[in-house]
Amino acid sequence: MTSPKVAETKGNGLPEKLVYEFGDGRAEGSTGMRDLLGGKGAGLAEMSNLGLPVPPGFTITTDVCTAYYDLDSSYPENLKEQVLSGIQHVEAVTGAKFGDPDNPLLVSVRSGARVSMPGMMDTVLNFGLNDITVEGLAERSNDPRFAYDSYRRFISMYGDVVLNIRQEAGLERDPFELLLEQKKEALGISEDPDLPVEALKELVSAFKSEISEKLNVIFPTDPWEQLWSAIGAVFASWNSERAVIYRELNGFSNDWGTAVNVQAMVFGNLGDDCATGVAFTRNPKTGERAIFGEFLTNAQGEDIVAGVRTPQPISKFGSKEGEVSLEDVQPKVFNELLDASDLLESHFKDMQDIEFTVQQNKLWVLQTRNGKRTGPAMVNVAVDLVDQGMITEAEALLRQDPEQISELLHPILDPDAPRKVIATGLPASPGAAVGKVVFTAKEASEWMERGEEVILVRTETSPEDIQGMLAAKGILTARGGMTSHAAVVARGWGKPCIAGCGSLVIDSTEGTVNILDNSSVQTLKRGDVISIDGSTGEVMLGAVPLVDSVLPETFERMMVWADRDRRLGIRANADTPEDAELAREFGAEGIGLCRTEHMFFGDDRILAVRRMILAGDESSRREALEEILPVQRQDFLGILRAMAGLPVTIRLLDPPLHEFLPQGEEEIKRVSDALTVSPDVVLQRITQLHEFNPMLGHRGVRLAVTYPEIYEVQTQAIIEAACILVDEGVDARPEIMIPLVGMPQELEQIRDLVVNTAEAVIAKKGVKVAYSVGTMIELPRACVVADQIAEHAEFFSFGTNDLTQTTLGVSRDDAGRFLPEYVRKEVLEADPFVTLDTQGVGQLMEIAVERGRSVKPAIKLGICGEHGGDPKSIDFGHNLGLDYVSCSPYRVLIARLAAAQAALR
Amino acid sequence: MTSPKVAETKGNGLPEKLVYEFGDGRAEGSTGMRDLLGGKGAGLAEMSNLGLPVPPGFTITTDVCTAYYDLDSSYPENLKEQVLSGIQHVEAVTGAKFGDPDNPLLVSVRSGARVSMPGMMDTVLNFGLNDITVEGLAERSNDPRFAYDSYRRFISMYGDVVLNIRQEAGLERDPFELLLEQKKEALGISEDPDLPVEALKELVSAFKSEISEKLNVIFPTDPWEQLWSAIGAVFASWNSERAVIYRELNGFSNDWGTAVNVQAMVFGNLGDDCATGVAFTRNPKTGERAIFGEFLTNAQGEDIVAGVRTPQPISKFGSKEGEVSLEDVQPKVFNELLDASDLLESHFKDMQDIEFTVQQNKLWVLQTRNGKRTGPAMVNVAVDLVDQGMITEAEALLRQDPEQISELLHPILDPDAPRKVIATGLPASPGAAVGKVVFTAKEASEWMERGEEVILVRTETSPEDIQGMLAAKGILTARGGMTSHAAVVARGWGKPCIAGCGSLVIDSTEGTVNILDNSSVQTLKRGDVISIDGSTGEVMLGAVPLVDSVLPETFERMMVWADRDRRLGIRANADTPEDAELAREFGAEGIGLCRTEHMFFGDDRILAVRRMILAGDESSRREALEEILPVQRQDFLGILRAMAGLPVTIRLLDPPLHEFLPQGEEEIKRVSDALTVSPDVVLQRITQLHEFNPMLGHRGVRLAVTYPEIYEVQTQAIIEAACILVDEGVDARPEIMIPLVGMPQELEQIRDLVVNTAEAVIAKKGVKVAYSVGTMIELPRACVVADQIAEHAEFFSFGTNDLTQTTLGVSRDDAGRFLPEYVRKEVLEADPFVTLDTQGVGQLMEIAVERGRSVKPAIKLGICGEHGGDPKSIDFGHNLGLDYVSCSPYRVLIARLAAAQAALR
Repeated sequence: MTSPKVAETKGNGLPEKLVYEFGDGRAEGSTGMRDLLGGKGAGLAEMSNLGLPVPPGFTITTDVCTAYYDLDSSYPENLKEQVLSGIQHVEAVTGAKFGDPDNPLLVSVRSGARVSMPGMMDTVLNFGLNDITVEGLAERSNDPRFAYDSYRRFISMYGDVVLNIRQEAGLERDPFELLLEQKKEALGISEDPDLPVEALKELVSAFKSEISEKLNVIFPTDPWEQLWSAIGAVFASWNSERAVIYRELNGFSNDWGTAVNVQAMVFGNLGDDCATGVAFTRNPKTGERAIFGEFLTNAQGEDIVAGVRTPQPISKFGSKEGEVSLEDVQPKVFNELLDASDLLESHFKDMQDIEFTVQQNKLWVLQTRNGKRTGPAMVNVAVDLVDQGMITEAEALLRQDPEQISELLHPILDPDAPRKVIATGLPASPGAAVGKVVFTAKEASEWMERGEEVILVRTETSPEDIQGMLAAKGILTARGGMTSHAAVVARGWGKPCIAGCGSLVIDSTEGTVNILDNSSVQTLKRGDVISIDGSTGEVMLGAVPLVDSVLPETFERMMVWADRDRRLGIRANADTPEDAELAREFGAEGIGLCRTEHMFFGDDRILAVRRMILAGDESSRREALEEILPVQRQDFLGILRAMAGLPVTIRLLDPPLHEFLPQGEEEIKRVSDALTVSPDVVLQRITQLHEFNPMLGHRGVRLAVTYPEIYEVQTQAIIEAACILVDEGVDARPEIMIPLVGMPQELEQIRDLVVNTAEAVIAKKGVKVAYSVGTMIELPRACVVADQIAEHAEFFSFGTNDLTQTTLGVSRDDAGRFLPEYVRKEVLEADPFVTLDTQGVGQLMEIAVERGRSVKPAIKLGICGEHGGDPKSIDFGHNLGLDYVSCSPYRVLIARLAAAQAALR
Repeated sequence: MTSPKVAETKGNGLPEKLVYEFGDGRAEGSTGMRDLLGGKGAGLAEMSNLGLPVPPGFTITTDVCTAYYDLDSSYPENLKEQVLSGIQHVEAVTGAKFGDPDNPLLVSVRSGARVSMPGMMDTVLNFGLNDITVEGLAERSNDPRFAYDSYRRFISMYGDVVLNIRQEAGLERDPFELLLEQKKEALGISEDPDLPVEALKELVSAFKSEISEKLNVIFPTDPWEQLWSAIGAVFASWNSERAVIYRELNGFSNDWGTAVNVQAMVFGNLGDDCATGVAFTRNPKTGERAIFGEFLTNAQGEDIVAGVRTPQPISKFGSKEGEVSLEDVQPKVFNELLDASDLLESHFKDMQDIEFTVQQNKLWVLQTRNGKRTGPAMVNVAVDLVDQGMITEAEALLRQDPEQISELLHPILDPDAPRKVIATGLPASPGAAVGKVVFTAKEASEWMERGEEVILVRTETSPEDIQGMLAAKGILTARGGMTSHAAVVARGWGKPCIAGCGSLVIDSTEGTVNILDNSSVQTLKRGDVISIDGSTGEVMLGAVPLVDSVLPETFERMMVWADRDRRLGIRANADTPEDAELAREFGAEGIGLCRTEHMFFGDDRILAVRRMILAGDESSRREALEEILPVQRQDFLGILRAMAGLPVTIRLLDPPLHEFLPQGEEEIKRVSDALTVSPDVVLQRITQLHEFNPMLGHRGVRLAVTYPEIYEVQTQAIIEAACILVDEGVDARPEIMIPLVGMPQELEQIRDLVVNTAEAVIAKKGVKVAYSVGTMIELPRACVVADQIAEHAEFFSFGTNDLTQTTLGVSRDDAGRFLPEYVRKEVLEADPFVTLDTQGVGQLMEIAVERGRSVKPAIKLGICGEHGGDPKSIDFGHNLGLDYVSCSPYRVLIARLAAAQAALR
């Protein structure tokens, strides 16, 4: 027996007990000792304590890892005897002996910190094998091929993981894989299982030579030496570069250390009385309570993953014609598994995903964890557990992944159908759609009218495309991020959208789209059928079958709990009466953002809008605005009526005027004809209004400083609409919002204009209207001078989209070119247009809240950017003390849930 | 005698003395009593104390104004007797009597707060006139026309200013002017002086009727009633809307109040022994010490302003053939004026601008103030005063207007030459130029080569235009603000530039530029001659003569004092060895910003740059970069050599790559030929790289995250150049700067890349190079996470241009459309791209400095935006505790001066 390097002391403050045993229906540790035993070790201990058949083993504590570093990479003196005692415990339970030629004990070694952490040492199986014990294994299993296959796998894993041969010897690829390939080639064999035992023996020998040649060390035949090397390798991997970076990024401490788990091997591939499988305590698609899962006879766990053989169902219940279940072939094992399943779910109080192996009719439970599930199952399981008294309503709420709620709202692609993914973009709006490719909004409308289902494929979309976007089943763009025009509009409608799909190059005149790959180009034509999955960003060729979703009734119950527990108000962003009604159905408590510019694009008014923009002086502008006034009033009538009794925040005109002008020669001609002006006049105005950076241009309140009459007429339309409604007995509550304020003087001047206009209308109509005037906070400057701005505002609404753009200096329309890489390279944790950048943007918001409230403690505060529907951002908003968040109607349910979670945390 | 409304108390804490007399060679007040007597009153008192012949009068203190408001618009009880006593004092000195039919005393009434303030009551002259006293005046002056002209002027001023007739009666225009015009029309007279006395009498009567008709009040015939109304009107004007807004904007207190000055009238138009004029104690163009000015015989002050008659010089010295000086015609008065001039300059210790009137051979000094002067005079006067021991060096420095220093550096338009201004833009780069209009950079170069002087007129410029901009005498753009490409480049070169001249519409293919006016269009063709004044923004048709400027030797002396007193270091922004040398000549202590992208545009490398951009993978990119490497190294060799011993901050590539690609079909064809690729490939890449908001796009450090090899090769070029120089014994000190950092991780990753590359070069060359690595702080996010960023930076350089763009959400290239209006409407105090927005951007900078220093107290801090050359921004930088500012070479002198002033303040 080889001895490890041992220090003369046991290290500072190190407790006596360094090793915790488990197995045989009991354990020294438990689930509460996660910090000491790591997640895996604590789980194995807990299962043992529950009396479940866990292969016996022991855990070396995380304390030892810390001591190992303190002691300059040597072990504390009393570790050796405790490890020895651990192995003896395993030997006693299994009856096998470590290194015994006849009945050798084989063990696995795994790392396990308190949290799962990439970069640490992987699993190594089959410690204990050498040229002698392999023969014993062959004899006892009566399967020499199995024994030598296990042996050659062990050597290669050991060489790869423990000895780290590729890096140490500077090899480009795994040398063992190479030898294996050469052997198969020489024998004309294509699959590993076809290798005869002789070939395996030759490989064992070749592998050992490779190790001694490349690393100048001899593969250890002493099982103890093998084991101690592995323990050292686990500890060393704690400080691997990748693990260190991961901890740094996640703020995890280097002092935590990792535990080491040593556990007896069990085999599901020793004959037909053996099996391996995965079981769920419930159906993960529906949440229905009944054991669910699959298994393979005479197989190893990796065979299930590889998918070479078709697994069979565990339970008779729900199995198809011709399938043979575990219940059929091994009823005793099945019943044991059923008991284990019940025990584990009631113990862990959640649906479990259990790995098990059957060795010669004996069930072994290897692992259990909370099972992944669909959205409906997530809700059903939680509510069912509440009904069973196993968890509280608050626990049920906190267990929901709000993002998964969208699976309850949109049709999804049949998870079992094959997919041929041809491109991937950003998952901009959830749900799936199938349709024929069209390239213009006009085509989309025309094809839809003749009964076709289409996907609108564009480089990017603009407000002009609205009709076509509405006509399409789904939208796919080559440019733009999660808050690009296409993404925002689609989410608002609950329509699937993939944005920023960079590999598309669209030629809309030719009617083709080229999909670039590193090596090839695939061309789609107008009319080709594609499927898009807005939840994953995948584009598929052809029609993938769709599955409808329905809201389970359990969901209604859960939302009652959520509404009771949340503090944040939830509003919706809606620009039309239809959207407003939808939002109200989803439970919105008001409109947080009603954009007036979308209204400007309607067919009945765009001409007047354009006439206004082309007007050379104020009086012609006013004339054009007089035409727009009644139409706008009608818009506001509809929205205010739909939200009777609830506040409606209406943002006055925000985008730069050039967005409303026509593009392209033909369109310009058409518009100039309609307006009876020369195309040159239109063109000249387009040129004059062109901006290099429209995001930072002449828009928002700046428009009103230059052309006060625009906001004047909009205010008139709002207040006139409110007066009409109040007269009818409808409780209209408009909140007028002025966008893009950076200087207190802007707001002061324009607020005066708005209030004077409103008061004039009210005085004329003789009706009392409760309205308020506030501003968006969407520029860094507005945040730092929020105290001065608050003097002129009754509410602040954080426009977190623009605030993110300006704070980070990132255009959301262009960011697709580098932001994904930023997230991949971990420069950013998440797309800041999806999840609020709390470190940057969030700090400015904190400044704004603090300064705004210092002047006006009761000022109403909300978020109306896209972040208003993002759970993490909602959590931030809750902690910031905001009054409400506002999001797309389709995210109102998610936001209600997330707000409750934030309050419960 | 009519009594004013008097309160029964004298008001809280009001002192006994409310009226201060002056005149007759003495005064009760003095220059130190500005707060009590207002600026004008204190000045009149001071001149009286000096024994100068000031028309006698008295000042009602600002205390009275405050009391007037406290007492609900009535006067304190003891004011009446003090005003009476003041009038008696004036009567005693002049011998005339207020209201006396034979020898009537006439007085003027003027407001006067401690600072000059628009919106307050203007001067009203000739109080004391009525139907009776006017006859006395006619008799004594022996000039009835003069008397009635004075009378009708008095009534109209009184009606206008004291009674405020236009506003009170809601009139569109001045009713008295209207009557005057009608009278002239009826008599067929075109000029006022041609009106006969009878007509003036009729006007007097008509004016009085107008007042009673329109206002229902009778024009007061009692001089005392006239006087008290005027005093009340002055006090009321203190709270006029305009004055209140002005105080609010400037942070002046409403409690200051205004004083009222009542002063005897003197007349320069009572005959040929009368005169009026303006005298400077020195030549305001050169600063030369000799009385300088002009006068008109038998005239009023306004006649000089009107310019109907040609004024004559005061002194024989310097007068031209045929001119008759005051010295010639009234030598005694001239000598008195000379004495007064000497006295005033030595008393006020600065060049004075003196208004005087001669009434019947008697000199009266009416006002003195510090005289306006040219840049050279400003310097010469201050140094001369130091030499005379009248002021200290610090005082001399503080008196300089740093902006005026640019007048010493650039040719200016002859101030005496006529100008026909056809358009006005932003004064983007000072100095003047004359040349023929060309529309493309190519034309500019070609025309220059054949000996023509040209002005490059473009919608905007881009880095591609550099050669043409260099060839042109001046640059004129239709778009862009004070920090647009054209403006920044031109200032760097000291070349005149007007930017954002919005009325220009350029058709470069037609070769014309249309200048739009409200009513008309003027068309200039290619080759037409224009003159531009980059200091005023004026564009003139034809050639206006130029005057060269030279640095006076006094300036050198002043800069020695400045350098001794300042704490801030001054560096320059320079991209070429020539600029670096120029900057060094101007006294720059290093390069604060060397932009590497300008280097990418040279003819010898742009092709390689484009090949790099078109490259599909890293290895082809590296190939192209290998071509660029030696050329870049050569650039850095030149700059580092020119700045030997001084730090040179080199910014790695910043602009988005599409800026380097060709534009227009022809150019694309040319480039694709040169690169032997298809034009489609170039076009596709251009389309792919297009950005909606390039300012917020894929640029700065983001380029390096995507294409690390670019920064790698740039670093290699810098460090190799430094190694070569150090080897030669030249002290090269590169500071490598990474732009557009917003996230600490960006800097951490890219800093590693830079340091590893640098160390590899240094190890290879075996030479010791002292280099440092830092970052620009130019995003709001960088400011709030400056503590984390500081961990990876040896210096911060505030990129205040971009920080202003992102903090305010304003694109400097587009801002021309609304920023001027913002400044006009006082939403902003100044163009934030010229003078740092201390309230917004400044607060973020304070946060950055505080957080950066909290982690790294010794971190080096500077500004390298355009603000580095702006005096107010330099003052802010000094107070913020920065180490240096960096500006265009041509502004280094200004910055040195401004830094000294900041330190002295």
